[in-house]
Amino acid sequence: MFLSKLDSINEAREKIYSHQKVMGSEVVPLKEAHKRVLAEEILSFHDSPPFDKSAMDGFAVKAENTFGASNSAPKTFKIVDMIGAGSESNKTVGENEAIIIATGAPIPDGADAVLMKEYTTTEGDEVTITSQVTPGENVSPKAEDIKKGDVVLPPNTFIRYQEMGLIASAGYGEVKVYEKPRVKLIITGNELVEPTKEDLKPAQIINSNQFTISSMIEDSGAVFSIGRARDTFEDVKIAIEEASKEYDVVMTTGGTALSKGDVVLDVVEDLGEVLLHGVSIRPGKPFGAGIVNDTMVFAFSGQPVAAMSQFDMFARKYLFEMQGRKFDFEIVERVSQLKIPSQLGRTDFIRAVSDDDTAKHVLNRGSGIIRSMVEANSYIIIDENDEGYQKDDIIDVVFFDSMTW
Amino acid sequence: MFLSKLDSINEAREKIYSHQKVMGSEVVPLKEAHKRVLAEEILSFHDSPPFDKSAMDGFAVKAENTFGASNSAPKTFKIVDMIGAGSESNKTVGENEAIIIATGAPIPDGADAVLMKEYTTTEGDEVTITSQVTPGENVSPKAEDIKKGDVVLPPNTFIRYQEMGLIASAGYGEVKVYEKPRVKLIITGNELVEPTKEDLKPAQIINSNQFTISSMIEDSGAVFSIGRARDTFEDVKIAIEEASKEYDVVMTTGGTALSKGDVVLDVVEDLGEVLLHGVSIRPGKPFGAGIVNDTMVFAFSGQPVAAMSQFDMFARKYLFEMQGRKFDFEIVERVSQLKIPSQLGRTDFIRAVSDDDTAKHVLNRGSGIIRSMVEANSYIIIDENDEGYQKDDIIDVVFFDSMTW
Repeated sequence: MFLSKLDSINEAREKIYSHQKVMGSEVVPLKEAHKRVLAEEILSFHDSPPFDKSAMDGFAVKAENTFGASNSAPKTFKIVDMIGAGSESNKTVGENEAIIIATGAPIPDGADAVLMKEYTTTEGDEVTITSQVTPGENVSPKAEDIKKGDVVLPPNTFIRYQEMGLIASAGYGEVKVYEKPRVKLIITGNELVEPTKEDLKPAQIINSNQFTISSMIEDSGAVFSIGRARDTFEDVKIAIEEASKEYDVVMTTGGTALSKGDVVLDVVEDLGEVLLHGVSIRPGKPFGAGIVNDTMVFAFSGQPVAAMSQFDMFARKYLFEMQGRKFDFEIVERVSQLKIPSQLGRTDFIRAVSDDDTAKHVLNRGSGIIRSMVEANSYIIIDENDEGYQKDDIIDVVFFDSMTW
Repeated sequence: MFLSKLDSINEAREKIYSHQKVMGSEVVPLKEAHKRVLAEEILSFHDSPPFDKSAMDGFAVKAENTFGASNSAPKTFKIVDMIGAGSESNKTVGENEAIIIATGAPIPDGADAVLMKEYTTTEGDEVTITSQVTPGENVSPKAEDIKKGDVVLPPNTFIRYQEMGLIASAGYGEVKVYEKPRVKLIITGNELVEPTKEDLKPAQIINSNQFTISSMIEDSGAVFSIGRARDTFEDVKIAIEEASKEYDVVMTTGGTALSKGDVVLDVVEDLGEVLLHGVSIRPGKPFGAGIVNDTMVFAFSGQPVAAMSQFDMFARKYLFEMQGRKFDFEIVERVSQLKIPSQLGRTDFIRAVSDDDTAKHVLNRGSGIIRSMVEANSYIIIDENDEGYQKDDIIDVVFFDSMTW
């Protein structure tokens, strides 16, 4: 598994996504369904609104009785009833009659419009109006939003706040959604220590990948648990074997060098099947993936930026689609503000600062430079068939925000 | 408070944001800081990397000793030591000597480059190389990412996954962040019932606002608790008074009609101060805001779409900035696919489907039509000084995704 055998990014993706798994479903209270993915069709049990509904506080009238009313030609109606929200009237509105009505209340029989309270003056059981209304004015007609029996949302819809309202209106107090994948993140690297303000001992490095990759797992709708393994075949083997049995996905950082004897992929080969090791990408060439106990194992680099980029290139889509949510890079075109060299045969994901028109790559971009990811809001993607771009060329950009759950 | 006294959207915003409150701070473990906002400066306690670090598995050498090495002219080095990750060597690399080194380990004295394992063959204590390296090759220099003592993040930075890694590398295992605002959402409306698949009784309507607005509160980084109040002055008064003492923000839905005697704003006036009632916007004219017990009260319409739009126009920014996070609409320009009429003096937030080039408003857009929000991914904003647009005009668009936490 070396240079001549590197997969292209698309080959690597195909190998991974041909093993795409999809989670089962669970029923949750609607209150907990925000940002989950529907695992059922939402069919409305109701018309919404369920009746012709007043959209204003005012007077329910026959619109034609108001025609011609104005400040100089007021008209007077007899008030025959009053309907609060949540109530109804058993009276019928006759000629030149009015029923006081609250916003949200059902339009009474005989009426076809609501005159806003603001255009009226009331004295005893008479209301004087100085404005006219057209039939249907200030009325939300029955079923204008949803019709009983209609499919209002298909399965696999991502539930934003809007969908929460629609699902409620359709009559669902609980809803079937895809389960969240549980991901075990195993950090390898004997040199790694927890964050500390004290001086580090020689050869120690702070473990930052546990924070970045676990946050990216959250940003993909999944939940995580973090473990550590020392850099020995036995320790990594125990960690991956256990995790593969108890979790839906396993991710590792470190131990993926392309030389022989690097530990993570050797373990995967021992326990299961290596799908790929080494991809022609930058950053992130030393990436591997495999299957252990029927569970996908993503083996990320120990280099922080390489690991984040590998996650974006390969793992996000897998986690989204486990939950029934489609994921593709939303590629937009921008004008490059700088010249960008690249290498034929390699796909580059270059950290960049982009806006609605332009993109400019972050200059300092070693695969260990976390600051370069902090400065960036997007990737410039350079296809393996391109040798780079000149200033002012049109380039492909993916915003980080377009990839989040 | 009626038509002639409607505030413009900007007047309403000024009245609200001149009462902007900012939460206090709390210290949380870094693991829990993802998507929080920094309430302190992050100053690095370490160089990162803390030493010249090998970026590859291979051999630490003096680069100049490798010059000229190739497949046809291999060179041989004496292996004098071996450094695993987390270890160091007390040996110095001399002329034509090499030390075996793991990714992440410190470069030993005397060496200035790492030759990748892949370009070598080892026999006993000798390694034969067939490739040359330049000084610094495969070495991540000390402090290339972060320099000890540098401010790496200013206060009020939103903590994405990238920032998580940078904060860890700076040495912080816990971090000071703004507290999350606790919002009490009070639903008024006697007609409202919980979602049910059973037939509704006459005049009943399903309470969908509790789901949409609470989800929008979550999407603004805050936490919520939902309460109900009947449409009477006394009930609403008790609810708002209690909430104003116990929560950081109060929000209500319903009872905001601009006619006299609508209950929510009357209660706010009774308990505290009404800042505004009625804004020249569409949808959402019947919006109010006030201060009770030094707590901001947002009084949203009972109409689902009006309430969501009012939240976007007024409450999001307030909740973001309570947490020290700046919020402004990210307005982008798009080509209108349809003619859009509007009215001078009124600001319209029109639900639309937009992409990277165009915007097209959703046609069915009554303020009760939740489906119109479900179909949309953006607002077209029409300023109060514009009378609308023709097809192919350039218009202002805000994507929903650009407003989320």
